[in-house]
Amino acid sequence: MATVPLISDDDASPEVQALYDDIRTTRGSDVVNNFWRALANQPALATETWERIKNVMAPGALDPLTKELLYIAVSIANGCEYCIHSHTAGARAKGMTDDTYAELLAVVALACTTNALADGLKVPVDPQFLA
Amino acid sequence: MATVPLISDDDASPEVQALYDDIRTTRGSDVVNNFWRALANQPALATETWERIKNVMAPGALDPLTKELLYIAVSIANGCEYCIHSHTAGARAKGMTDDTYAELLAVVALACTTNALADGLKVPVDPQFLA
Amino acid sequence: MATVPLISDDDASPEVQALYDDIRTTRGSDVVNNFWRALANQPALATETWERIKNVMAPGALDPLTKELLYIAVSIANGCEYCIHSHTAGARAKGMTDDTYAELLAVVALACTTNALADGLKVPVDPQFLA
Amino acid sequence: MATVPLISDDDASPEVQALYDDIRTTRGSDVVNNFWRALANQPALATETWERIKNVMAPGALDPLTKELLYIAVSIANGCEYCIHSHTAGARAKGMTDDTYAELLAVVALACTTNALADGLKVPVDPQFLA
Amino acid sequence: MATVPLISDDDASPEVQALYDDIRTTRGSDVVNNFWRALANQPALATETWERIKNVMAPGALDPLTKELLYIAVSIANGCEYCIHSHTAGARAKGMTDDTYAELLAVVALACTTNALADGLKVPVDPQFLA
Amino acid sequence: MATVPLISDDDASPEVQALYDDIRTTRGSDVVNNFWRALANQPALATETWERIKNVMAPGALDPLTKELLYIAVSIANGCEYCIHSHTAGARAKGMTDDTYAELLAVVALACTTNALADGLKVPVDPQFLA
Repeated sequence: MATVPLISDDDASPEVQALYDDIRTTRGSDVVNNFWRALANQPALATETWERIKNVMAPGALDPLTKELLYIAVSIANGCEYCIHSHTAGARAKGMTDDTYAELLAVVALACTTNALADGLKVPVDPQFLA
Repeated sequence: MATVPLISDDDASPEVQALYDDIRTTRGSDVVNNFWRALANQPALATETWERIKNVMAPGALDPLTKELLYIAVSIANGCEYCIHSHTAGARAKGMTDDTYAELLAVVALACTTNALADGLKVPVDPQFLA
Repeated sequence: MATVPLISDDDASPEVQALYDDIRTTRGSDVVNNFWRALANQPALATETWERIKNVMAPGALDPLTKELLYIAVSIANGCEYCIHSHTAGARAKGMTDDTYAELLAVVALACTTNALADGLKVPVDPQFLA
Repeated sequence: MATVPLISDDDASPEVQALYDDIRTTRGSDVVNNFWRALANQPALATETWERIKNVMAPGALDPLTKELLYIAVSIANGCEYCIHSHTAGARAKGMTDDTYAELLAVVALACTTNALADGLKVPVDPQFLA
Repeated sequence: MATVPLISDDDASPEVQALYDDIRTTRGSDVVNNFWRALANQPALATETWERIKNVMAPGALDPLTKELLYIAVSIANGCEYCIHSHTAGARAKGMTDDTYAELLAVVALACTTNALADGLKVPVDPQFLA
Repeated sequence: MATVPLISDDDASPEVQALYDDIRTTRGSDVVNNFWRALANQPALATETWERIKNVMAPGALDPLTKELLYIAVSIANGCEYCIHSHTAGARAKGMTDDTYAELLAVVALACTTNALADGLKVPVDPQFLA
């Protein structure tokens, strides 16, 4: 259970209703997931966050699937249950195959291992990495 | 300064020398970076880690540059200074452009924001993400 | 389910009963929440922790509500579900309004973003911050 | 050394110059700190981040000093060296006394302790915290 | 619910069946816990991880119980619910007493406190620690 | 450079001098390391932390070296540079061999890997771990 009520369509203020409408239109889906229904208790923060997501996750130098994979990687490292589930589902919807998922997990697990080793040994950064 | 001495070529045991040789051959470069020179104090762990890196970072369902980007993302979330520097340099060597780097940072920063919001609000996971 | 049994009033040793009594008296409430019922399996650690909390969270240069807000902020960054829930409830009991909660979340989310950017870019600390 | 060059005033594009100007005007100070000089390599991300900071850190339900204290707390929990230094300096500039700083550190340290205990014991959340 | 199906004995491929068999033989128990049933969706990663665990957790300079205690400590610091539960149970099966568990939690909690204080104060490392 | 001045013996108040004396006597060494010289700016917090360390790190169900190893493990997972250095030095002073250190690092690195995998796959906790 969230720390705030989840705002249903019936209880949405006009500002929140506009946010929900844009989420539905942008995604071509009727679903507004719980993250937005919780964050909608802070309408300004919700709207700003949504605008930022639309902007950052749009195709650019990186394609949308790669961005979802990066999102999963960060969410695992940060241990965020909700984001792991929502972005794993999102990556699958954008075409993540089982093989891609297996490699993603292998890279994340490897990075966590070598992060720990480099941190534990306090390895000094090589000058050539700083050039 | 590391918690252990960095093992130079002159001080390398045959096992460590074999590791350094393979690193040089695999990368086509004379440089053996400090991570390996520190970890080489534990030769078995160093060799196992190197084999795992060669295996995990090889081209597969994901290309090597995407894997480096994922590595950077995890290293930032874990706050590992050495790995941030070494993998940012590694990604550039594999073709990361300034635009790609800018988008990578934007996705990582966004994920850290929404991880915090989803965690802070303790948003319940939507059933459709679990299907 | 906890890794240890939750100690009920009936099962409390005299040492634990004294702890529960002090929690009830200090808070003016009959409730002893699960954190204490779990930690009471280690009575010395529980008592020491409770004394420390009473001391640290008392009014001082910072008022009790501000201290609860700081507690929530750290608990979000550390991803501790129990503490997020208990201290969000605690902050509300001490007068946290919806507007305050919205701003708290916005600051925490912003800090997580710029922490990631500063860490990712490995920005050198400006000399004037060290003066 | 950062992963990117720090952009001096002389090397700033018009977009970056406008950002630097706004930072100077808003703060009433000639200094543009390294965070912005590094992030300015990604002008759009830098400008968006600056706008968000101006908005989030402005006085509201929480005063600017309390927001700085929350920023420090999150930055400690995330282990971000740059942000710890810059926001500790920022809080002092906004009036943080030695006593306030001592209490801030005590609350952060306490929260990290009880986060670990609640996480380690996997204490189930009390129903009354969810109401 | 996991992000992947848990692979039952009936659905196990020969490679996965061989993994499950080795887990059962090594542990002298019929149980294959959920971690392996989830990870078995990536058979190569599962097998490699299992081999690594057998190797790393075997008796050596450190005894198996001490290794489990270290595992719990890291899992608490990383906030991994599954690993906290599985390794706390594992440590008990290897002889962890209530007193040992109490001291483990006290050390972890203390380390989280002084980590926060040292990080928050950005204490410079003493030269003698680097010798 | 710390966020606070390091308090030398000459600048120590009687309360701080008493703390430094007890550190020296307890350790049988003239050195007072920087952590205490920084934390001494908050004398009450410093004294309380020192008393807690003396109590928690004393021999008990776990021996002092094992406690240092746990301390290192947590400090690596939390990424605290100062504590990694000070407790690695401390463990060596208490008899940590190169083999022990190698196994410690291997366990920590392994735990970080499986923490990431269990978290990434959101593996449900097995009922037998909860009994």
